[in-house]
Amino acid sequence: MMKTNPGNFFEDFRIGQVIRHATPRTVTEGDTALYTALYGARFAVQSSDAFAKAVGYPRRPVDDLLVFHIVFGKTVPDISLNAVANLGYADCRFTRPVFTGDTLSAQSEVIGLKETSSGKTGVIYVRSEGFNQHGELVLSYIRWVMVRKRDERSQVGEQSVPQLAPAVAPTAFGHALPQIAGRQWDDALSGSSARWADYSAGERIDHVDGMTVEEAEHMLATRLYQNTAKVHFNQHSEAKGRFGRRLIYGGHVISLARALSFNGLANAFHIAAINGGRHVAPLFAGGTVYAWSEIVDRQPLPERQDVGALRIVTFATCDRPCSDFPGKTDQGHEDGVILELDYWALIPC
Amino acid sequence: MMKTNPGNFFEDFRIGQVIRHATPRTVTEGDTALYTALYGARFAVQSSDAFAKAVGYPRRPVDDLLVFHIVFGKTVPDISLNAVANLGYADCRFTRPVFTGDTLSAQSEVIGLKETSSGKTGVIYVRSEGFNQHGELVLSYIRWVMVRKRDERSQVGEQSVPQLAPAVAPTAFGHALPQIAGRQWDDALSGSSARWADYSAGERIDHVDGMTVEEAEHMLATRLYQNTAKVHFNQHSEAKGRFGRRLIYGGHVISLARALSFNGLANAFHIAAINGGRHVAPLFAGGTVYAWSEIVDRQPLPERQDVGALRIVTFATCDRPCSDFPGKTDQGHEDGVILELDYWALIPC
Amino acid sequence: MMKTNPGNFFEDFRIGQVIRHATPRTVTEGDTALYTALYGARFAVQSSDAFAKAVGYPRRPVDDLLVFHIVFGKTVPDISLNAVANLGYADCRFTRPVFTGDTLSAQSEVIGLKETSSGKTGVIYVRSEGFNQHGELVLSYIRWVMVRKRDERSQVGEQSVPQLAPAVAPTAFGHALPQIAGRQWDDALSGSSARWADYSAGERIDHVDGMTVEEAEHMLATRLYQNTAKVHFNQHSEAKGRFGRRLIYGGHVISLARALSFNGLANAFHIAAINGGRHVAPLFAGGTVYAWSEIVDRQPLPERQDVGALRIVTFATCDRPCSDFPGKTDQGHEDGVILELDYWALIPC
Repeated sequence: MMKTNPGNFFEDFRIGQVIRHATPRTVTEGDTALYTALYGARFAVQSSDAFAKAVGYPRRPVDDLLVFHIVFGKTVPDISLNAVANLGYADCRFTRPVFTGDTLSAQSEVIGLKETSSGKTGVIYVRSEGFNQHGELVLSYIRWVMVRKRDERSQVGEQSVPQLAPAVAPTAFGHALPQIAGRQWDDALSGSSARWADYSAGERIDHVDGMTVEEAEHMLATRLYQNTAKVHFNQHSEAKGRFGRRLIYGGHVISLARALSFNGLANAFHIAAINGGRHVAPLFAGGTVYAWSEIVDRQPLPERQDVGALRIVTFATCDRPCSDFPGKTDQGHEDGVILELDYWALIPC
Repeated sequence: MMKTNPGNFFEDFRIGQVIRHATPRTVTEGDTALYTALYGARFAVQSSDAFAKAVGYPRRPVDDLLVFHIVFGKTVPDISLNAVANLGYADCRFTRPVFTGDTLSAQSEVIGLKETSSGKTGVIYVRSEGFNQHGELVLSYIRWVMVRKRDERSQVGEQSVPQLAPAVAPTAFGHALPQIAGRQWDDALSGSSARWADYSAGERIDHVDGMTVEEAEHMLATRLYQNTAKVHFNQHSEAKGRFGRRLIYGGHVISLARALSFNGLANAFHIAAINGGRHVAPLFAGGTVYAWSEIVDRQPLPERQDVGALRIVTFATCDRPCSDFPGKTDQGHEDGVILELDYWALIPC
Repeated sequence: MMKTNPGNFFEDFRIGQVIRHATPRTVTEGDTALYTALYGARFAVQSSDAFAKAVGYPRRPVDDLLVFHIVFGKTVPDISLNAVANLGYADCRFTRPVFTGDTLSAQSEVIGLKETSSGKTGVIYVRSEGFNQHGELVLSYIRWVMVRKRDERSQVGEQSVPQLAPAVAPTAFGHALPQIAGRQWDDALSGSSARWADYSAGERIDHVDGMTVEEAEHMLATRLYQNTAKVHFNQHSEAKGRFGRRLIYGGHVISLARALSFNGLANAFHIAAINGGRHVAPLFAGGTVYAWSEIVDRQPLPERQDVGALRIVTFATCDRPCSDFPGKTDQGHEDGVILELDYWALIPC
């Protein structure tokens, strides 16, 4: 009986296959404190029980991205242990608030498979879902990832690539928060008076600050998420690898960019959906992360007047301040760009 | 509408101005665990619910300096984002115990303004206050800081410098703790049998141990306090700056010195007041912090026989053991000294 | 009155002497979150309240090794502050589960003393015990350590060396866990379907993964345990010492090896006893830790059918993958081996 987990290879996956992931995880105030220490997030709803209660929550919810990282971490041993590259995310929706004390578990369904032309790898598409201890869905997202084949000669069965919408529709999100009491939303405490109507499509915001990342920090974070991807932790093997260094978990960059975005988006307190995300270039320890955002759309939510949605594209860079808004070019992205993240955030009206 | 926070410049402040700070923060057991991991503090009252209850607390209170750092952190975006130098503290009093679950918020009143002769900067004096979720004052202190002017030519209105007492009087502190049951104070558990009467003015204590600081540690700490001062986090910009390196938050040094002081002051469990503090020299990662203390005064507290006050001046050094008690000289301070902290600690009688 | 703790020297110990240690410590969810962040442990019982409840616990217990490290840390200022070498452990038993909110304290009894032939040092044997806030024993172990004499000429009184059993008998452990409901043990969530009967004596398991250690990580861990051994923290003094570098706390290696062992021993959720442990070589920051295990015995527990015991010898290495199972040789251990740990783990039948 095989005791260690070799991970799944491309030919191990079947369309329709459902994988329940280990290890369930109770989220605690230890996790939220570490999350603050790792990124310095300052959104008032997630920072203060008093603020959260005043605006309508029973108490402060767990940061959306911490939920994402914990659920994502669980999928790694089954989905991406033999990955060559993490290619993208789509249709990510936060469907219920998570509070400390909740226990998160995860499962994934294989929704697409496509062998690459080399015959050595294939792309798998999964719909991963996170649940709380009551079995309620808290998070759902599609990820696709290029995975090695165990054997180049092995035949692959049914293949198909799912249709992915370019963005989540406003009708499909906004269920993870209570009615927000806008009058109780204290702009002095939240750090900004800018609300939904104060932003407009096309607006660009340089988040100004930069944050240097140390090896200890990204490893603490990635272990906190119980993410076991080898490339983040093993300098002895990575020294001989593609980059000669440990690669920082892409989600660490997303959380850094989100924390930096407080400076300009202080009231955009809840990530309701992620339309897509691309890790344009790897980040290594010693790099300093900067970020800027463009508001690309502004939409009301169906039957809600308390909060509205901003569609935001955030670019993060390494060792490049963002006062000139480095983003996409015809050939790809400008030098220094490491992340392009397209998401919907909710903000009081 | 300006979305990002440029911070206030000298000419933005007015005497009497009151600034309510973002972001309120619920203090949790995650924060206290991280505080232990960052400094290794071992004072029994803050470490053990059982010990705290035995001597009269409902449960263990949050470390005084953790409260200070969280309140201080909130003031940074409004008070010192454009600071050139953090000049000093005075009249700092801890007025109520803080327990995990409490939510801290902060405000500052401008109590003094003085343009410097260069015309490029000015010194502002603020009284900063921390409150719990019931609006009760938990901490109050004066800080003065040199801040850049936005425009050298701008005229400055009313100026004045507040009178600062050299020390907090024993009548003004000691309200942040219950009656301490000295008979239940177990010296074996607290780590020392030395109590109030065992210390005398003029006594010098070398705290012996040294603690090396890593970049990841001080950045984790400073983000935990949601302190956004850029100099602590951004190696990309600091490489071109005054020191070529990230500067460690001065409060990190204070907490290290306090934790080291356990070896010699194990029963001095509560900081009741800080008379003054000076960051004599900056600390950078890789430096090893040592500390020694002089007992400069010993006072009873009005109407209390359970605890007494020791006025302690703690000096911290970098890469210099303190067996020869390096401190002040006629010209300033001896080589290697980085901190001089003058405070009142309470200790069972 | 001496205020600082110089630690005990060899001639300060007497057989039969009982030392109550400072500082009692309440274990919180902050500690368990940090433990996860430091090692990435994934055992389901300790990770998930929902899983723990399903199988019979009131909620998830604190990781056994976190309990060990906290108790061990308390003994350092009294037992090993003047140690030359930590020589071994024996008869270590976990006797009760610890839950967050419990307060741990510790005491040690001197059970053996033997001066070394040089006359400069001696070996002391202690039985150290950890208790919860109700005074219930949670952990008991023997440690022996070589300690400096204060004065080479000082006479030493009664000497004797205790008889140490090579292993803890299965009748002597297994009291720190409830009846485990094996049918509720969900193998998909726990990460493995391998149970007690699936392992056999002589079986070797390479745990595959490697984990690089940073200075900030081992210092955060060791301070979290309030372990004050100077060699772990002070680069300024260690630069002039035996290794030129800070030495990593041996318990950090044990926890890393245990976390790595999840890959192969996912259901071996509880360490019931440690038969012995040897730190074969020191570990320094920058090293990458790998591990492999041999199942050396498999025993039922008296009057229990829910779980059985596996006696496991885990070897950890530095910068050496374990696919060739590097272990003992006639002369000692193979190159790269840093830890040999012999323990009993419990696993559902």
